[in-house]
Amino acid sequence: MRKGRLLVISGPSGVGKGSICKKVIEKEENVEYSISMTTRSPRAGEVDGENYFFVTAEKFKSEIAKDGFLEHARVYKHYYGTPKANVMEKLAAGIDVILEIDTQGAMHIKESFPEGVFIFILPPSMTELRSRIIGRGTDSESVIELRLGEALKEISYIDKYDYCVVNDDLDEAADNVISIINAEHSRVTQNIYDVIDKYKEEI
Amino acid sequence: MRKGRLLVISGPSGVGKGSICKKVIEKEENVEYSISMTTRSPRAGEVDGENYFFVTAEKFKSEIAKDGFLEHARVYKHYYGTPKANVMEKLAAGIDVILEIDTQGAMHIKESFPEGVFIFILPPSMTELRSRIIGRGTDSESVIELRLGEALKEISYIDKYDYCVVNDDLDEAADNVISIINAEHSRVTQNIYDVIDKYKEEI
Repeated sequence: MRKGRLLVISGPSGVGKGSICKKVIEKEENVEYSISMTTRSPRAGEVDGENYFFVTAEKFKSEIAKDGFLEHARVYKHYYGTPKANVMEKLAAGIDVILEIDTQGAMHIKESFPEGVFIFILPPSMTELRSRIIGRGTDSESVIELRLGEALKEISYIDKYDYCVVNDDLDEAADNVISIINAEHSRVTQNIYDVIDKYKEEI
Repeated sequence: MRKGRLLVISGPSGVGKGSICKKVIEKEENVEYSISMTTRSPRAGEVDGENYFFVTAEKFKSEIAKDGFLEHARVYKHYYGTPKANVMEKLAAGIDVILEIDTQGAMHIKESFPEGVFIFILPPSMTELRSRIIGRGTDSESVIELRLGEALKEISYIDKYDYCVVNDDLDEAADNVISIINAEHSRVTQNIYDVIDKYKEEI
């Protein structure tokens, strides 16, 4: 049976990775988001087990102790992590799992799960990224410069990734990610020996 | 600029690799066949520089001496080879080059051009392959058994390939190869450093 693949997707803030992931999940059957676990409180409209698994700090720490995360991090007062069990169940059921995460988190995943498919989303240009960030209309000039510096720092991790996709046109970028998913399912991997054995039995 | 990729496609006789390659070239711009050089005479309708480069044995041997082939082989009385120059020109022009070749030839290419993309075409089953061979109606029972044994020997090379595509439905198999081509163009490769430098200059 087809085994799912873990797709680890990073890219600078403002590049549109969220929109790409959403589009891919809309277009493709058998591709789902990974659901993170967090100790922060649910916001209005957020559903436990759908947006996040909302847990207490005690529960989170016991999961860390049980090696229950592919990666986890503390951001200010709260913990966030990718629960291993949730991802593994989906992969075993043949579902591809999308994990949208920053480069730091992705590098942790690469250590704990090197068989993931690491995809980096690039802006068509830094000028374009700048205007997308400005377009949000929420940041002051100095914050924009900070974000662009941060973006360059993120992009410098690109050589740790398997693929890069330029988000010029949203549909094209999503199709590009879908091509990567399809190609990865055509990789010659260990399970190919089952195929050969099956053939040998037949003749 | 986008650089072309060399697609090396193998698979047992009767699996339908020719039909898949034809379909891919029909569907995709910028994908072309590699043109082989041979010392055999042109058959009716074959055009020099299109089906093959038809040359004398002297010319062929001088090309061997100049290291002008990605691979070459002697089959009975005649020589066949893949001219390096023809492939390299196309790749440099951004054209992907398809090379349909047996596993032995593919292994030579892997030595001389390891950056090729190696794709193996599989039958849905050996039973299906047998009926496709029988369907051709030209072979005796013993020849069919010989061909199936040969097919298994070819398939045993599959772990030297990057991808495998099962030819169950022709259109699906061609789309699968197209996904592989697209994904390979999204690979994080050396040229990515140009992208990063461009970004850095911009800000």
